[in-house]
Amino acid sequence: MTSGVSPQDFAKRLDATAADTETLLQRLLSDTTLPGEIARPHRLMDAMRYSSLNGGKRLRPFLAVESAAIFGVPRESALLAGSALECIHCYSLIHDDLPSMDNSDLRRGRPTAHKKYDDATAILAGDALLTLAFDIITRDEVHKDAGVRLALTRALARMSGLGGMVGGQMLDLAGEGRFGDKETPDVAKLQQMKTGALLKFGCIAGALLGQAPKVQYDSLDAYGHAFGEAFQIADDLLDVEGDAAALGKPAGQDAALGKTTFVTQLGIDGAKARLRDLLNQADSALAPFGAKGDVLRAAARFVAERQS
Amino acid sequence: MTSGVSPQDFAKRLDATAADTETLLQRLLSDTTLPGEIARPHRLMDAMRYSSLNGGKRLRPFLAVESAAIFGVPRESALLAGSALECIHCYSLIHDDLPSMDNSDLRRGRPTAHKKYDDATAILAGDALLTLAFDIITRDEVHKDAGVRLALTRALARMSGLGGMVGGQMLDLAGEGRFGDKETPDVAKLQQMKTGALLKFGCIAGALLGQAPKVQYDSLDAYGHAFGEAFQIADDLLDVEGDAAALGKPAGQDAALGKTTFVTQLGIDGAKARLRDLLNQADSALAPFGAKGDVLRAAARFVAERQS
Repeated sequence: MTSGVSPQDFAKRLDATAADTETLLQRLLSDTTLPGEIARPHRLMDAMRYSSLNGGKRLRPFLAVESAAIFGVPRESALLAGSALECIHCYSLIHDDLPSMDNSDLRRGRPTAHKKYDDATAILAGDALLTLAFDIITRDEVHKDAGVRLALTRALARMSGLGGMVGGQMLDLAGEGRFGDKETPDVAKLQQMKTGALLKFGCIAGALLGQAPKVQYDSLDAYGHAFGEAFQIADDLLDVEGDAAALGKPAGQDAALGKTTFVTQLGIDGAKARLRDLLNQADSALAPFGAKGDVLRAAARFVAERQS
Repeated sequence: MTSGVSPQDFAKRLDATAADTETLLQRLLSDTTLPGEIARPHRLMDAMRYSSLNGGKRLRPFLAVESAAIFGVPRESALLAGSALECIHCYSLIHDDLPSMDNSDLRRGRPTAHKKYDDATAILAGDALLTLAFDIITRDEVHKDAGVRLALTRALARMSGLGGMVGGQMLDLAGEGRFGDKETPDVAKLQQMKTGALLKFGCIAGALLGQAPKVQYDSLDAYGHAFGEAFQIADDLLDVEGDAAALGKPAGQDAALGKTTFVTQLGIDGAKARLRDLLNQADSALAPFGAKGDVLRAAARFVAERQS
């Protein structure tokens, strides 16, 4: 199935949502205290802003906005839910980069938070972004129905916590042999937890916001599942074949760490074949939405073919 | 005003809630995945259990249970909200103990999480407990009214995040001169954020669960404010006058770090006088509840006079 959205149109939409997300996060991370808060310490706010206002692609908010658009959800609502999701993503990068975790000095071509500030400030900025996400997602402007906001809040907690993203990072470190004998991880499950769960939340957020019937929720869940795995396979391929300048970080890091990835498991050709399968799965999952699924179809191709 | 609850009765109630909280946390931290979760990795669950199932006093859940009891809220609801709060408290201890933060090797007489496991596991266990709190607080069993659960969720986020507990830890580190010139912190504000905010959440949780009128919410808010400051002054006094064996950690740590505390600011006698004032404030705030406020009155005396 071909998508009715040209690469140029897709890039424009992606950029527009990235810009709107940046503006919204700037507002959410202002110095003004909200009811229930006592003070917003400067250094903490600086570190939170440094780690989240950085011109990323904002792929996760984009998935929330575009999945919500299928159901005619107001853009502002989806952007707010997407910004909560982005706070979770940004906190996870701060903590993953720490010396005791992946020990990364660079992120998107800039010093990581603990290099720019210090380890303690980086840990706290991560904790605060994680907590802020749950403030944002509960706000009245997200949805008029309190039940919808609760469903979003709980889904975000489950997908980002011990049984999702955080658990995935744990499995990833175990797979590097950090806690004794190196175990060969189940790469698909590890990825589904570590990176897939948050990407999928973006996709199902639209269905929850749109109060979609279960069959449509399930379609977006299936799309999100294929999208997440495609994202990670493309990432693993980039680490082998990618260009360090475009990536903003060194290539070949997975091999240097002796990591099991989709590429070490399937080979380059096998990984590329699996990626094609996943794009077909994503297309099939979106079929029931017809032309309304065009942007998400283009999004799957975009992540599969991206160079950074 | 004297309280109608004897020290023996108070101790029994405190112990009973601690036991119920322990049982509930054990259930919440089982290996069984919930809808939306993919898997619960063993090492992560072990570290989360190690850091939260440890026979603490469970003062924060106790405040939630006893403030809720004023309004006839079912005990199970308050225990669930209290357990979410306890997850936040336990995560904050794990992160505060890290080498890059307070660098503590012992907590309640046992190795801290990063000594028992490793820094990466400790960071992730903290992140996962923080996230789990927001899963728990949204559950249907907390309250039948979705609006009440949302109000609790948002209050928990605000009080534990950048403008509350996390921000307070940031100010505390700054006050130690960790980021350049040592600034003398505003001890009352720092404490209100770092330790006061979570204790206060326990107190107002009952009012939110009980859908109390604003004037009663404000009474518990005022009580919580006095309680939080009394708790911290007693803590600062224990660090000077306390017994290491009873504390389960070395005394004199504040002085060793050159920390500004209520004791360095007011002197020992001044701190004790302030503590008496705060107990009177707590009593006054509870006056409108009559005998229904007896347990909370006893709780304030308990924290002021505790030996560990």
